[in-house]
Amino acid sequence: MTQFPDFDYANRIRLVRALLEETGVGALMLSVGADLPYFTGYEAMPLERLTMLVVPSEGNPVLVVPTLEAPRVDDRGVFEVRAWSETEDPVAISAELAGNVDRIVVGETTWSTFLLGLQAAMPGTRFENASVLTRELRMRKEPDEIRYLREAAEATDRVVDRLAAMRFSGRTEAELAAAVRAMTLEEGHDVATFDIVASGPNAASPHHEPTDRTMQSGDTVVIDFGGRHGGYCSDTTRTFSIGEPAPEIVYAYDVLAAAQAAGRAAVRPGVTAESIDIATRQVIDDAGYGEFFIHRTGHGIGLEAHEHPYLVAGNDLLLEPGMAFSIEPGIYRPGEWGMRLEDIVICDGSGVDELNRSDRHLRVVE
Amino acid sequence: MTQFPDFDYANRIRLVRALLEETGVGALMLSVGADLPYFTGYEAMPLERLTMLVVPSEGNPVLVVPTLEAPRVDDRGVFEVRAWSETEDPVAISAELAGNVDRIVVGETTWSTFLLGLQAAMPGTRFENASVLTRELRMRKEPDEIRYLREAAEATDRVVDRLAAMRFSGRTEAELAAAVRAMTLEEGHDVATFDIVASGPNAASPHHEPTDRTMQSGDTVVIDFGGRHGGYCSDTTRTFSIGEPAPEIVYAYDVLAAAQAAGRAAVRPGVTAESIDIATRQVIDDAGYGEFFIHRTGHGIGLEAHEHPYLVAGNDLLLEPGMAFSIEPGIYRPGEWGMRLEDIVICDGSGVDELNRSDRHLRVVE
Repeated sequence: MTQFPDFDYANRIRLVRALLEETGVGALMLSVGADLPYFTGYEAMPLERLTMLVVPSEGNPVLVVPTLEAPRVDDRGVFEVRAWSETEDPVAISAELAGNVDRIVVGETTWSTFLLGLQAAMPGTRFENASVLTRELRMRKEPDEIRYLREAAEATDRVVDRLAAMRFSGRTEAELAAAVRAMTLEEGHDVATFDIVASGPNAASPHHEPTDRTMQSGDTVVIDFGGRHGGYCSDTTRTFSIGEPAPEIVYAYDVLAAAQAAGRAAVRPGVTAESIDIATRQVIDDAGYGEFFIHRTGHGIGLEAHEHPYLVAGNDLLLEPGMAFSIEPGIYRPGEWGMRLEDIVICDGSGVDELNRSDRHLRVVE
Repeated sequence: MTQFPDFDYANRIRLVRALLEETGVGALMLSVGADLPYFTGYEAMPLERLTMLVVPSEGNPVLVVPTLEAPRVDDRGVFEVRAWSETEDPVAISAELAGNVDRIVVGETTWSTFLLGLQAAMPGTRFENASVLTRELRMRKEPDEIRYLREAAEATDRVVDRLAAMRFSGRTEAELAAAVRAMTLEEGHDVATFDIVASGPNAASPHHEPTDRTMQSGDTVVIDFGGRHGGYCSDTTRTFSIGEPAPEIVYAYDVLAAAQAAGRAAVRPGVTAESIDIATRQVIDDAGYGEFFIHRTGHGIGLEAHEHPYLVAGNDLLLEPGMAFSIEPGIYRPGEWGMRLEDIVICDGSGVDELNRSDRHLRVVE
């Protein structure tokens, strides 16, 4: 499991309790997912044995945890521990700790079986998604969080530089993905979490899983990968050409790079999240590739690889300093080729702070 | 992602629809978790973009899936695909496909945010845990499922044999865990999913995470590891002694091995799940170690490392042929030492079919 840094968890608990009070919510309940380590430095195992932090609006936070996980818990002075034995009912224990309140917010990735159990145990209580509150804190990164994100991004940039010097032709996607994974660890991550290597027609599938396809001259190759460093995620994408690219690829890539640059240039406090999506999409639409850009422009990043804010049509959230997100337009021609360019950036006081800075050209490899 | 074998998914869908009809449930809804691949051979990514299989009691099953995941979907002839674009609402689409029904069962690991969305969209519908139905199928393994479980168990047995020939002393827990992980892959798994190496006093924590502690003569070392093979899980534990064990360790291990043997001997169709727990616990209680056996005796295994049936006090489920589970008593002396012995077994027509067969003695290593 990830070792989370020694952040000021007590302060984060104070801030979220103020939000509970402000919004009239009686308790916050967090199980598996990133909200729990954000407030405690402790991550729940995704198991049938429930782990649940109960933060009542009054009284101390309590972590309900299976007895056999309890030795791994460090309370960091911010919560009490209630270990439950194999014959106790952790849902009933959690419900009792939350108390008889009108409204409870529950972590968004909590298993539905536990939510159904809580709803049955507390028939008079309305349950809502905790993320509506917790994202208000998590979206605006603290300086120490930005430091971890920057270090993680720099590590991936070094992997990209090493990739650009490697031979692709004759290797399989799966082999190159294994190399990406190894380099992600070597350059400074606690864990490598994903490694998409999509070549030739496979690159038209944005979430392609690396196969035994042998890469060859003429292929365009999308490599999208990342890991976690102190709990914080990296995520970057570069597109490579094995041998000199065809004129169509050169043209499309120029469009893509211009779109991504337009997205980065549009970042500043006070603009909407969707305006970044509009900025990139406009460039791709104007070049006639609009129907081949089949996903949003980006997603927030932090303790989760995908979190708020989402850069997507319809999201009128205003960007603020400290928000961290990807900018990653792509163009995908089904059955033919695909390309994507992705960087992590921070909205700072006046504009954009680019965490990824590796060469953004279409890189020609052998 | 895992490649799932070419099972008879259409038949499994037929069987679960019969259960829906029998129990008066209007629709089955499955998102992340093992139920979805059990019925479709397709696994959902744990993402904020919803993937949901809707199996109405009448009409065709439909997989609601993000457009950018759709290229990865193989419908295997058993379901339709409804790809949703970035500006559509997948919860609303899923609710409409389920129709206006009184009762819906939803996959137990579905994110609570999606369940809350469905509940808001369908205020007249009662939601329940799908596992209550799906476990009726998944608990009784088909012969081909047993074959995958057996192959996975045999692979871990080979890892144990290799471990017994290795030098432990002078290596850290983390180094040995990395070796276990590598051997788990080499001996035939698609992925290595966990590797506990707990030495000396660390072994008293059942879910210990390997540290930089250097192992030394006199340590007792618990190694509990597993992976996935064709989607099916392995999970075995052996305890090692670095150098000759102290008399107390020899005595306690004899108790542990006798308890585990009693558990295996108790397996046959028609006995309760808790009776296996009682059988192992009795031996440990009688020897005076009862308070140090702090967890249940075992858990079911299949597409999940932990699934039904659970061998725990109070579970009066009757064992049937085809049920697969672990038998894993342990003794943990806080601050001093710990030991566990775990095998995967199948309840067959007359008794127990032992999938793990590696030497069950306390293995002395250097």
